Amino acid sequence: MSAVAYVGVVGPGEASSQEQWLAEEVGAQLADLGAVVVTGGLGGVMEAASRGAKSRNGRTLGILPGEDRDAANGWVDIAVATGLGELRNGLLVRASDALVAIGGGHGTLSEVAFALRIGRPVIGLGTWAVHGVDKATTPEGAIERVARVLVL
Amino acid sequence: MSAVAYVGVVGPGEASSQEQWLAEEVGAQLADLGAVVVTGGLGGVMEAASRGAKSRNGRTLGILPGEDRDAANGWVDIAVATGLGELRNGLLVRASDALVAIGGGHGTLSEVAFALRIGRPVIGLGTWAVHGVDKATTPEGAIERVARVLVL
Amino acid sequence: MSAVAYVGVVGPGEASSQEQWLAEEVGAQLADLGAVVVTGGLGGVMEAASRGAKSRNGRTLGILPGEDRDAANGWVDIAVATGLGELRNGLLVRASDALVAIGGGHGTLSEVAFALRIGRPVIGLGTWAVHGVDKATTPEGAIERVARVLVL
Amino acid sequence: MSAVAYVGVVGPGEASSQEQWLAEEVGAQLADLGAVVVTGGLGGVMEAASRGAKSRNGRTLGILPGEDRDAANGWVDIAVATGLGELRNGLLVRASDALVAIGGGHGTLSEVAFALRIGRPVIGLGTWAVHGVDKATTPEGAIERVARVLVL
Repeated sequence: MSAVAYVGVVGPGEASSQEQWLAEEVGAQLADLGAVVVTGGLGGVMEAASRGAKSRNGRTLGILPGEDRDAANGWVDIAVATGLGELRNGLLVRASDALVAIGGGHGTLSEVAFALRIGRPVIGLGTWAVHGVDKATTPEGAIERVARVLVL
Repeated sequence: MSAVAYVGVVGPGEASSQEQWLAEEVGAQLADLGAVVVTGGLGGVMEAASRGAKSRNGRTLGILPGEDRDAANGWVDIAVATGLGELRNGLLVRASDALVAIGGGHGTLSEVAFALRIGRPVIGLGTWAVHGVDKATTPEGAIERVARVLVL
Repeated sequence: MSAVAYVGVVGPGEASSQEQWLAEEVGAQLADLGAVVVTGGLGGVMEAASRGAKSRNGRTLGILPGEDRDAANGWVDIAVATGLGELRNGLLVRASDALVAIGGGHGTLSEVAFALRIGRPVIGLGTWAVHGVDKATTPEGAIERVARVLVL
Repeated sequence: MSAVAYVGVVGPGEASSQEQWLAEEVGAQLADLGAVVVTGGLGGVMEAASRGAKSRNGRTLGILPGEDRDAANGWVDIAVATGLGELRNGLLVRASDALVAIGGGHGTLSEVAFALRIGRPVIGLGTWAVHGVDKATTPEGAIERVARVLVL
């Protein structure tokens, strides 16, 4: 593990206001821990998590599906335009030390499952009930679990 | 859709004898339909499905995680050594028109979810209960569903 | 090295008739050696090499840039629709034991250089003069060199 | 083009002191232009360019071949551990608006050719003489060309 943790926050691009609130809180608290917040760079949960991180002067990385960097939301510091389409989900997971998954959706599930497959801890907030996911019920609970597994 | 269907058969590399039997039957019946059987090229469900297909003179494609083609099981006709590690799961899904998922495991779940994400029909045999998966209970039932969704 | 060799034949999608003739001859002679002919699956040199291989009952693998398998030319036995765009060039090189490069073009050069970078022998026929490329002047000369480096 | 330019600086991981000096100058001047300096994240030219950028408070992105972020040199702000091996070269090129290539090596050539293939301007400093590369002889000349093609 390098000195700085990279934590992926994954969830749907069209998110409920509850999901966006959770994501924003998680992003903010990850920034407080000094972690880089990694997302898919687009809207919904990805945007809210990035906005939360920036509200606390955190750092944000967006790994985009397309080739156009302009698709990134406005709270992404560094955007990687991959052109890999949805295959960029796997790259996002690989580039992260742990994952916080918020909400449902098949894309999110693919990231959760892929993370568990390659040994990345996954903390879930109102997401799929998959064996191996560490369930939290509040942003604080999620962050506590992230801090514990990554020894932050 | 091209004239020939490519159907992915995914499942654990270490599979129970029941899972292997299911995979072998599915592979054989896909071959009878003229489909190319696509797998991850290794053991367990991947090997059984490939063996089943070859028992009926079917064609098999293995998309390997490593760079060494020799890792492919003996029933893979054409092996693609990707060196992508588990990211090859997404490639396998993309290269397939539909997926038959057998058994559990996080790798299998990641493939199921990714397939649903990008619009590939998924037929499940004793696998994860995910919204969107078309559940079958026998190899015949699975093949019937594949044939229906792909209009074979 | 597995028992069967996989040899990539790379070159422009819009090729001169001379380049197409070279590719067709190379494909045919690779088939005679029992090698699987790997191409990018599209037109020009890729199509001619595949057609040559099929004229001798060889086997052909096409690694396509897009997600649509129908883009493959008619002489591709097994088509892998990657959706990786031009990044599939690197995958093609990885999946091959050696490369025969025909003609110019920046795409071809990227494959030649990538192959040399990861230690795949490259035989050139009227292609870029890059240190490390083994130059041939005829299809027979190219095949001789392939057979020598792969011990076929 | 987004407001901020991403400029890749590519070259060998084991570089001469002249190449390192060029890379450091280029990195520094790109930072002065406000560009994000994108590299492969390792040593030699990659490290020198990153160090140069950081010496002027620039921003640096490293796209690593392996899965271990700790492999990044100390001047990389944001490191993406891809696990793609040398295939990450293509990703680096895609993520950049233009490329400055320094020195030889087959890896560098593959990046130069891939960039030209997908339409990214390439400025060369003591690198391969490939049609399409805009040759510069000094760091200042290279930066002038970058600024012109990207309208910085």
